[in-house]
Amino acid sequence: MTIEEKFGAVLKSVRVSRGISQEKLAFNVDLHRTYIGSVERGERNISLKNINLICSALEISLSDFFKEVENID
Amino acid sequence: MTIEEKFGAVLKSVRVSRGISQEKLAFNVDLHRTYIGSVERGERNISLKNINLICSALEISLSDFFKEVENID
Repeated sequence: MTIEEKFGAVLKSVRVSRGISQEKLAFNVDLHRTYIGSVERGERNISLKNINLICSALEISLSDFFKEVENID
Repeated sequence: MTIEEKFGAVLKSVRVSRGISQEKLAFNVDLHRTYIGSVERGERNISLKNINLICSALEISLSDFFKEVENID
């Protein structure tokens, strides 16, 4: 898996565990729902700013998020 | 500090602690030295792929790197 695919898998997992829809997350971070979907599918090389926004919205620290990304290996 | 500035400060700190020059890091990750410099100054919204490349080259896990970013707060 690429780093984008691992990131996307964790994003989806964390988002669903919070009971937050793609639409609601997209609204909260002022991004488009289709963008969130493409990140979750590992199709986007997401930027630091958007990583930070999304983790804040999901109330997970960057380090905890990336620990989950590493655990996918 | 913005997330880019915090990221850049940690990058510089980790790189220097490894005794690696901007030139050597840039060469190892196939990016330009001036790009590394601008990331360290917090001027770039670096992408996930480049974050991953740079952390690998510096032999630090993404979660450990971002733990240091969080500790700047």
